[in-house]
Amino acid sequence: MKFKMMYSFLNSDIDIVEEALEEAVYADSALLQEASLHLLQAGGKRIRPLFVLLAAKFGSYDIHTIKKAAVALELIHAASLIHDDVIDDAEIRRGKLTVKAKWDNRIAMYTGDYIFARSLELMTEIEKADAHIILSDTMVELVIGEIEQIKDKYRFDQNVKDYLRRIKRKTALLISTSCELGAICADVEKNLQTKLARFGYYVGMSYQIIDDILDFTSTEKELGKPSGSDLLQGNITLPVLFAMEDVSIRKEIVKVHEKMPRKEMDQIIKMIIRSGAIDKSRNISNRYLEKALELVEEFPQNQAKTALKNIAKYIGKRKY
Amino acid sequence: MKFKMMYSFLNSDIDIVEEALEEAVYADSALLQEASLHLLQAGGKRIRPLFVLLAAKFGSYDIHTIKKAAVALELIHAASLIHDDVIDDAEIRRGKLTVKAKWDNRIAMYTGDYIFARSLELMTEIEKADAHIILSDTMVELVIGEIEQIKDKYRFDQNVKDYLRRIKRKTALLISTSCELGAICADVEKNLQTKLARFGYYVGMSYQIIDDILDFTSTEKELGKPSGSDLLQGNITLPVLFAMEDVSIRKEIVKVHEKMPRKEMDQIIKMIIRSGAIDKSRNISNRYLEKALELVEEFPQNQAKTALKNIAKYIGKRKY
Repeated sequence: MKFKMMYSFLNSDIDIVEEALEEAVYADSALLQEASLHLLQAGGKRIRPLFVLLAAKFGSYDIHTIKKAAVALELIHAASLIHDDVIDDAEIRRGKLTVKAKWDNRIAMYTGDYIFARSLELMTEIEKADAHIILSDTMVELVIGEIEQIKDKYRFDQNVKDYLRRIKRKTALLISTSCELGAICADVEKNLQTKLARFGYYVGMSYQIIDDILDFTSTEKELGKPSGSDLLQGNITLPVLFAMEDVSIRKEIVKVHEKMPRKEMDQIIKMIIRSGAIDKSRNISNRYLEKALELVEEFPQNQAKTALKNIAKYIGKRKY
Repeated sequence: MKFKMMYSFLNSDIDIVEEALEEAVYADSALLQEASLHLLQAGGKRIRPLFVLLAAKFGSYDIHTIKKAAVALELIHAASLIHDDVIDDAEIRRGKLTVKAKWDNRIAMYTGDYIFARSLELMTEIEKADAHIILSDTMVELVIGEIEQIKDKYRFDQNVKDYLRRIKRKTALLISTSCELGAICADVEKNLQTKLARFGYYVGMSYQIIDDILDFTSTEKELGKPSGSDLLQGNITLPVLFAMEDVSIRKEIVKVHEKMPRKEMDQIIKMIIRSGAIDKSRNISNRYLEKALELVEEFPQNQAKTALKNIAKYIGKRKY
C-alpha cells in the first residue's frame, strides 16, 4: 500500500493543513516569506501533522481547531531543519538547495527564528494549558538534543544509549508530542492521551533509526542528498555503532572526517553495509515498532487506528 | 542620580529576577548552561524586567507571578542578542567575548534557540491568553525587524522612515511589550495597560536612537566594542542618515565596507560627529521622550510612576 493511501479519508483535511501552512508564514517581507516557503514547498511526509490529526480522531475532532496544532508542529519541525542545515553546512535537503545554500547562514538563522515565532503565534489560539506546557518542554529537549549532537560529532567512543537518548530528543519526542497535542485538542480521554503519546514515541524512535539506516542503504536520488552524509558530518548513528563492534572496521571509521574523498567514503559505506550492522539496527527499530503495534491494539476501533497501524508498519519497511 | 538609585525600592525584587534568570537556563548539558549564562552574567541593564516590574506596580503586584514575565522577556532579549552576534559576526558584547566568539556559530545558534525555548516554558506558567498573543506577535515582529536589518545593510539609499520602522521592530516593541505584560500579569485596568504599552514604545524608540548615537560618540571602553561598529557592519542608523544629507560626507560614507581600515573609519566617525547629525538625532530621540513624559503624567501617582519618569529622563541623557 502506498503511504498516502493509508490515510485517504484525511485527504481533504491534509489539504486544509497544507493551505494553513503556507498562510502561516505569510510575511510583509518578501524575502522572509520566500525563504520560509522554500522548505515547506519542497514537500516532506507531513508525519507530524498526520499524527496530530489521527490522534484527534479518538476525540471530538474539529479540523479547524486541530489544524492549528498540526501546522504549529510542522513549523517547529521545519524551523529546526533549517537551523540544522546551518549547523551541518548542508547544501541539499528534499532534493532542493537548503535555505542556507540558496541564501546564506544569516537568512537561514532568521528564517528558522521566524517560522518558530509564527508557530507560537498559532499556538496562542489553542486554549489548552497542557498543550503549551508539553510543547515548550519538547522544544527545550529538542534543542538539547541538537546541541548534544554537535558535542557528540566525530566522538567515536559513544555508545548505543547515547545514541538512543539523542534520537529521542531529536525526533521521537516531537512525534510523541504530535500525538499528544492532537489528543489534547480533541479532548481525548486522559488515559488514551498518554497511550497515544507513548505510541508516537515508539514510532518516532523506529522512524529515526530507519532514517539512519537509509543514509547508508539508499541512493543519492532516493535520499535527495549523497549517501553516508550523516557519517561524513560526524553523526555517529546506530549502524555506525554496530559496525564499529568489528575492530578492523572501527579502525577505518574513526578516520572519517568532513573532507574525506568520496571514493574512501564509499568504501566505508560498503564496509558498514557488509558488516551486518544494518540488520542489527533494523532489529532495534523493529523492537520499537512491535511495542507501538502492541499498544495500538488497546486503542478503540476506528479508521484512525487502522491508519496508525499501517503507518507504523510502513515506517518500518520504508525505502526512503 | 545613578540609574540603579531610580528604582531602589525594587532592589530585592530585581535580585529575585536575577536568581530566576540563572535558574531558567539550568541545563543537564553543561555546555548549554555555560553558554547561556555567559551573556546573562555579563550584566546588562535589565531594562525589560525593570519595565515589567514597574508596570505591574500599577496593579496587584506579586513578584512571584511577575518575575516569570520579567525573566521570559529578558531571555527573549538575550536569545536575540546571541543570534544577532552570529549575524553581525561580532566578537565582543558587554565587554566580553560573544557566545559565537567564545564557542562558535553553531553553539551560538542553539544557545539562542535554547534560551528562547526556556522563555516559552516559563511563559506557560502565566495563564493570561492576552500575554501569549502579544508576546508571540512581538517575537514575529522582532525577527522581521532583524531580517529587514540584514536586507538594509549597506543600503545607503534608505530613509528615516525605514530606520524608524526597523528600530520599532528591533527594540521598541519588546520594551513596549515588557510594560504591557507587566500590566497584564498584575491585572492593571485596560486603559492604563494601553498607556503603559505606549509609554514603553516611546521610551524604546528613544533608547535605540541614543544607542545608535553612542555608537559614534562613546569610547571603546564605554561601549565594550569599537566605536562605529554599527556602521562598519553596514547598519545605517539615524546619525548616518542625517550626516549623509551633506553630499560630501555622503560620498565618504558610501565607501564604508566591513574590512575598512580603522584609520579611515575613525575619519568617517569624526565627520559624522562634526556634521551636526548627532544633535539632529538627539532631537528625534527627545521628541519620543517628551511624548513618554507627557503620557506618564496621566498615570496614577506612586513610586513606580516616579521611577518611570526618572528612567525615561536618564535614557535621554545616558552616556553608555
